[in-house]
Amino acid sequence: WEGEFFPGISKIKYEGPSSKKILSYKWYNAEEEILGKKMKDWFRFSVAFWHTFRGSGADPFGSQTKFWPWEDGTNSLAMAKRRMRANFEFVKKLGVDYWCFHDRDIAPDGKTLEESNANLDEVVALAKELQGKKIRPLWGTAQLFLHPRYMHGAATSSELAVYAYAAAQVKKAIEVTHYLGGENYVFWGGREGYQSLLNTDMKRELDHLGRFFQGAVAYKKKIGFNGTFLIEPKPQEPTKHQYDWDAATSIAFLQKYGLLEEFKLNIECNHATLSGHSCHHELETARINGVLGNVDANTGDPQIGWDTDQFLTDIGEATMVMLSVVRNGGIAPGGFNFDAKLRRESTDVEDLFIAHISGMDTMARGLRNVAKLIEDGSLGELVRKRYQSFDTEIGAEIEAGKVDFETLEKKVLEWGEPKVPSAKQELAEMIFQSAL
Amino acid sequence: WEGEFFPGISKIKYEGPSSKKILSYKWYNAEEEILGKKMKDWFRFSVAFWHTFRGSGADPFGSQTKFWPWEDGTNSLAMAKRRMRANFEFVKKLGVDYWCFHDRDIAPDGKTLEESNANLDEVVALAKELQGKKIRPLWGTAQLFLHPRYMHGAATSSELAVYAYAAAQVKKAIEVTHYLGGENYVFWGGREGYQSLLNTDMKRELDHLGRFFQGAVAYKKKIGFNGTFLIEPKPQEPTKHQYDWDAATSIAFLQKYGLLEEFKLNIECNHATLSGHSCHHELETARINGVLGNVDANTGDPQIGWDTDQFLTDIGEATMVMLSVVRNGGIAPGGFNFDAKLRRESTDVEDLFIAHISGMDTMARGLRNVAKLIEDGSLGELVRKRYQSFDTEIGAEIEAGKVDFETLEKKVLEWGEPKVPSAKQELAEMIFQSAL
Amino acid sequence: WEGEFFPGISKIKYEGPSSKKILSYKWYNAEEEILGKKMKDWFRFSVAFWHTFRGSGADPFGSQTKFWPWEDGTNSLAMAKRRMRANFEFVKKLGVDYWCFHDRDIAPDGKTLEESNANLDEVVALAKELQGKKIRPLWGTAQLFLHPRYMHGAATSSELAVYAYAAAQVKKAIEVTHYLGGENYVFWGGREGYQSLLNTDMKRELDHLGRFFQGAVAYKKKIGFNGTFLIEPKPQEPTKHQYDWDAATSIAFLQKYGLLEEFKLNIECNHATLSGHSCHHELETARINGVLGNVDANTGDPQIGWDTDQFLTDIGEATMVMLSVVRNGGIAPGGFNFDAKLRRESTDVEDLFIAHISGMDTMARGLRNVAKLIEDGSLGELVRKRYQSFDTEIGAEIEAGKVDFETLEKKVLEWGEPKVPSAKQELAEMIFQSAL
Amino acid sequence: WEGEFFPGISKIKYEGPSSKKILSYKWYNAEEEILGKKMKDWFRFSVAFWHTFRGSGADPFGSQTKFWPWEDGTNSLAMAKRRMRANFEFVKKLGVDYWCFHDRDIAPDGKTLEESNANLDEVVALAKELQGKKIRPLWGTAQLFLHPRYMHGAATSSELAVYAYAAAQVKKAIEVTHYLGGENYVFWGGREGYQSLLNTDMKRELDHLGRFFQGAVAYKKKIGFNGTFLIEPKPQEPTKHQYDWDAATSIAFLQKYGLLEEFKLNIECNHATLSGHSCHHELETARINGVLGNVDANTGDPQIGWDTDQFLTDIGEATMVMLSVVRNGGIAPGGFNFDAKLRRESTDVEDLFIAHISGMDTMARGLRNVAKLIEDGSLGELVRKRYQSFDTEIGAEIEAGKVDFETLEKKVLEWGEPKVPSAKQELAEMIFQSAL
Repeated sequence: WEGEFFPGISKIKYEGPSSKKILSYKWYNAEEEILGKKMKDWFRFSVAFWHTFRGSGADPFGSQTKFWPWEDGTNSLAMAKRRMRANFEFVKKLGVDYWCFHDRDIAPDGKTLEESNANLDEVVALAKELQGKKIRPLWGTAQLFLHPRYMHGAATSSELAVYAYAAAQVKKAIEVTHYLGGENYVFWGGREGYQSLLNTDMKRELDHLGRFFQGAVAYKKKIGFNGTFLIEPKPQEPTKHQYDWDAATSIAFLQKYGLLEEFKLNIECNHATLSGHSCHHELETARINGVLGNVDANTGDPQIGWDTDQFLTDIGEATMVMLSVVRNGGIAPGGFNFDAKLRRESTDVEDLFIAHISGMDTMARGLRNVAKLIEDGSLGELVRKRYQSFDTEIGAEIEAGKVDFETLEKKVLEWGEPKVPSAKQELAEMIFQSAL
Repeated sequence: WEGEFFPGISKIKYEGPSSKKILSYKWYNAEEEILGKKMKDWFRFSVAFWHTFRGSGADPFGSQTKFWPWEDGTNSLAMAKRRMRANFEFVKKLGVDYWCFHDRDIAPDGKTLEESNANLDEVVALAKELQGKKIRPLWGTAQLFLHPRYMHGAATSSELAVYAYAAAQVKKAIEVTHYLGGENYVFWGGREGYQSLLNTDMKRELDHLGRFFQGAVAYKKKIGFNGTFLIEPKPQEPTKHQYDWDAATSIAFLQKYGLLEEFKLNIECNHATLSGHSCHHELETARINGVLGNVDANTGDPQIGWDTDQFLTDIGEATMVMLSVVRNGGIAPGGFNFDAKLRRESTDVEDLFIAHISGMDTMARGLRNVAKLIEDGSLGELVRKRYQSFDTEIGAEIEAGKVDFETLEKKVLEWGEPKVPSAKQELAEMIFQSAL
Repeated sequence: WEGEFFPGISKIKYEGPSSKKILSYKWYNAEEEILGKKMKDWFRFSVAFWHTFRGSGADPFGSQTKFWPWEDGTNSLAMAKRRMRANFEFVKKLGVDYWCFHDRDIAPDGKTLEESNANLDEVVALAKELQGKKIRPLWGTAQLFLHPRYMHGAATSSELAVYAYAAAQVKKAIEVTHYLGGENYVFWGGREGYQSLLNTDMKRELDHLGRFFQGAVAYKKKIGFNGTFLIEPKPQEPTKHQYDWDAATSIAFLQKYGLLEEFKLNIECNHATLSGHSCHHELETARINGVLGNVDANTGDPQIGWDTDQFLTDIGEATMVMLSVVRNGGIAPGGFNFDAKLRRESTDVEDLFIAHISGMDTMARGLRNVAKLIEDGSLGELVRKRYQSFDTEIGAEIEAGKVDFETLEKKVLEWGEPKVPSAKQELAEMIFQSAL
Repeated sequence: WEGEFFPGISKIKYEGPSSKKILSYKWYNAEEEILGKKMKDWFRFSVAFWHTFRGSGADPFGSQTKFWPWEDGTNSLAMAKRRMRANFEFVKKLGVDYWCFHDRDIAPDGKTLEESNANLDEVVALAKELQGKKIRPLWGTAQLFLHPRYMHGAATSSELAVYAYAAAQVKKAIEVTHYLGGENYVFWGGREGYQSLLNTDMKRELDHLGRFFQGAVAYKKKIGFNGTFLIEPKPQEPTKHQYDWDAATSIAFLQKYGLLEEFKLNIECNHATLSGHSCHHELETARINGVLGNVDANTGDPQIGWDTDQFLTDIGEATMVMLSVVRNGGIAPGGFNFDAKLRRESTDVEDLFIAHISGMDTMARGLRNVAKLIEDGSLGELVRKRYQSFDTEIGAEIEAGKVDFETLEKKVLEWGEPKVPSAKQELAEMIFQSAL
């Protein structure tokens, strides 16, 4: 392969909302300051290698539909390197500073672990060179779900040898993430769960998972990797029940196994809705527990019960996501990773750019809307006023745990029936809608 | 009202599976010993006062359909007492030892807290007398969701005065439960949640809930009530999001607020399925975390997205419930409360008996099936064998947290590619089905 | 009750998007022409009497929360009339021309059908007077679900006498709708469905429903009522399965019973999503079958499995709704009825106005966005081009049914493997988002 | 490949419920007569070639897990023939008389249609020989979803050349089904639907689908194929919305395009539940509309939102399925096709037998339970009595459409308030449970 992978496509520029040029940013202006921070620093956008460069368009009922011009149909090391060059051309033309990867999507699996590791080292060395000074992984991770050895789980496999294999693979993946300057490391337990409780010892599997994470933390510290460890909750798929079901379940697990100080969460919108929550709910749950670490910026389809990993283009949703991120004071050292894929039927190279631009512009509109909401101030004021009865002396004492039930009962006898004002939900919705 | 409430219905007896008599037990034989325990001791069945005696048949689109002969159409104290007598006749004819209640369904709300408490005392005194020596509450609870004062929540209300009112009401409800010899006390936070995140301060509300439970624990200890405190998870309805979403979420909450030693969980099958889990999953999650405290024996409809509280008549489901309970060594001091109601269209007095008998017989079949599975042994053996690679020296070391990632990597290099056997799920399902 | 019901609230005016006045229209400008039609003629907005004036705030777990100042706590005829006056003050202050009602929410049920009819006549006479020249019902309907007599259904009740009662009630409701100048008449079969197939003869019930509709059509013609008959699909709730599940199911039913020429559909967004479809899907299904007759403008919650009837404030959704309506050439003689209710916790009189204004402004934004999309033209062009291979001679022949399989096979042998272009979904989404 | 494919497994025999032998029938006794028909004639069980012989264990997150000993890793014609021999050994050892296939799973796709057809002919000739006198296809079908050419649909593709290709492929598939003595031909429109309404002309696509089916009917008649045409409804997956959403939607479509006399439905339980219905509902909907043609005997997982195609082992569900089939007087010329696959983690050859045996035994228990219910008679009597008010003179007149609304109103005035009895749902459930 000679020359450019995306000829005819130059670096995407900000041209403002009135631009009719498809390949331009209408809302995302990297260097523009919003709410005291540059847009690029609020978002720290990242390209997901797997969807963008390994997504074949296959689904459970259909074979590959994407045949990018640079692909030669092999899974060779040479192909892996060529693909990596395509990745960096894409990342640079998009104008972002981050990328994310699984070990096995950037380099081919070998016949043995040594061979797999050698393949990985070779591709990683090239990536290091291509990264230059500015680009680095938002995070790396190990792919512990594709290979048949992981069919019963990785850390939660019923087979000890598989548990060991997963440990070895994670060890290596942390090492290369560290080597590439990655700022985080993610655990998505694709096969950590069960298909049926009838043949599963859930307690034993969860205990193994706890041990596994403890081992990973120990190794991370040993080699001096300071990136954040992130768990990515998902309720189900591929298994019937994934152990990291949602934010609250992951927090329960981290507490039980003494890991709450060592991990944050990577919240994915599509996973949130599959678990029966809004994306905003999952972000807020993570935020108020101090573990909001990263956002996988995508969306599902409200009528679909599996992970569609679509690019998010709903500006209301994007605004709610940014409400949480702004309240969190930003998301660094995490960022927004586009864990999103082209639809199976989108087969033009250009579609890769369109999808990312559309996703970035939508998030940018979300941030701009939050700025409007904050400037306007009325939504924040509505919430503050709602709880003002607790901004009193007795309120402070209750919140400090100093008032017992007997005292409270006496107060009730003294105060009589409470007056309860309107919750003003429709007003809150009106204010929110007006900012879009 | 003179004489019997259920004339023509005598005490329900066990007549065995071949009986054609509707009002008889075909599978539940209270004194029969199964797996080393009497059936009545495995189940500790309880009648839920609210559904059985206060269920009107109303739904969001329809008004009352049930007009029991003993009801006079009032919510008077006299009516409350008459109804309590009907309750005990029902409990005794059914042959169970437990009942459950909310404060406000057994006695009318007064104009003030004092008046409400006085009403409650009067009815409770009668209940105490009617209970006799054998019958007592499986649990009591406070109704903190019906009254408009609780529309924004009770412990999580935005209004301090409502928080106080809830505390006073819970204080009294614990007292009367204690007085009646109740063995547990349940918290179902009917309004503890939010309708919209736009007007909600979720962190502040959850902190209040934590303080509230801490206050309840302190009061319980002060008055020497030794019954178990139980949280009843439910994902949503009436609110969009209930804070006690599911077992895992409740465990995360209890851990965060230092309450894990003070509470167990009351798992309701219909709530389980609404949260996206099987009932068996929720029971197992509670069990392996040591907090399985009670079962609300009911079922939902797999196609319906709200709480239908139907009597469970699925013998497969009942068998899975009993698998968890038997593994737990029983459920005492909790039990099986029929948090289940007649369909709106079931309007014969006799239907109350049919429904309870059918629910009890179904659970009894579940227990008998578990006994068959245990006697057969092959399902247990299948699971044991699946994890046998961990029943080794290196397995024990891994489980003890003594093996680091570097050692595991060395093992992989030594062992090569793991062999991974079949999970035998279809065999497990065949064995399970054969026991039904 | 003397004087105004909504003192301090004057007629709501259009003030444009930059207005900060809560009680003003920012996007809905009744007389403004968009796409060749005044906004008020595109929408024909209607106030739903039941939600706005009979909504109590009660839900399955909670009692009434709304105590409007004009209510005296009774269900008397005098109260019904006072409420009707409040209704027309509200309708006029909002500046809309339509209202919708069930027979039983505007007038109290009597002890007999004669008494109920007399009550209805009295209130309807007042309504006729209050309507003046401009205001009239968008539609009327009979409430066939609240009363216990309808617990097994109305037209599909297992009881013949109930079928007859429903016919008598519908007969009267058509008459009063006709008398008031109503432009449509709606059938929402609240209890037409089943709770369990085990005790149901579905075929017999559906045959009865077919006969019932045939009878209603005959009566409508007899009295010269020219308003459109509308079926309102809903998949479930209150029953497990409602016979008018969704648009397609309703169309199948209408075809089978020879009624397709006599009915159109009233599509409700919340019902659409409960049936597993997007609102846009249901509207399009109705439109392409020539039966899009009315829109119940509301929304559900994507995480909630029951009918929440919220005011729609999602501008993306509103834009898709208006895409269908504009393609349909408008919705008259139907319109947009706000089958939407205040949240239980919204208890200020002012909230009634806020909610309707917010709903109307959101729909107005939808229409304005559609105008932008049409002016821009690129979305329409994208779709047109996608199917252009059928805009050929052979395409026309295929579409006319003139090409048999043998000829098609010959063509394939001649043409070889087809070339299949990208579906450009992400581009379509980008264009759509840009118009919001 | 020499000798047997399943050495060590002999023909599966009926050994009765007390047998502990895994590879034996405990409930299915082919020649035993139940309700006047042999069990094998009630069921007409069929093995699905695709799941059983082409299922690789791959899922959206994982690669192949099944490596059957007879597979050589190729998709060659030789391999196709060897696999066909394995199929017939399996079918015969199982003791069933039917199998089902897609054109492309039994023979490899060629580079051109001619080549694909030639491959198919070669394999089909072998199948014809191996079938012998007793075995034949329950149905054949064309695979119109796997190949990328069908990514926008087959009959509903936006590309005319793809529509033609699909026609040619269906033509051939009908021919080979006819040649093999197939008794039915199925249309499952895997890609007939849309991913987004934004880029779709739904009306045009549906019109094309109508023309396509009309063409298929014409060709079937031309070649004298008398097998039944079947549509297999599925609500979604792989597309967001499949045009044959459920039974009612399919019936609406068939009516609109004048095809109702030419098609029946193939109801799949997993598809039923994905569409929000119980399997029993879909079967009954098909039955009462005279179009119940075949059953795809499988099940989904009540917590999972995609098609899991599991073997059905729920005896309650199986009993309800058989209630419909018995009411239908049987299912011939359709049957029960096991459109069900081993779990990804079930990798023993033996598991293929276990799964089918378990599925057949479960269905057999369902039939035996229905026989018990019919013999007992009380469930049927309960339903009959429920509607007895229509078994009167006036009832018959209403059902004949002879009673107008005015007459019904007069009856109501004469009769007064109807009496409405209990629906006895809990009793129906008790009776049903007792038969299991």
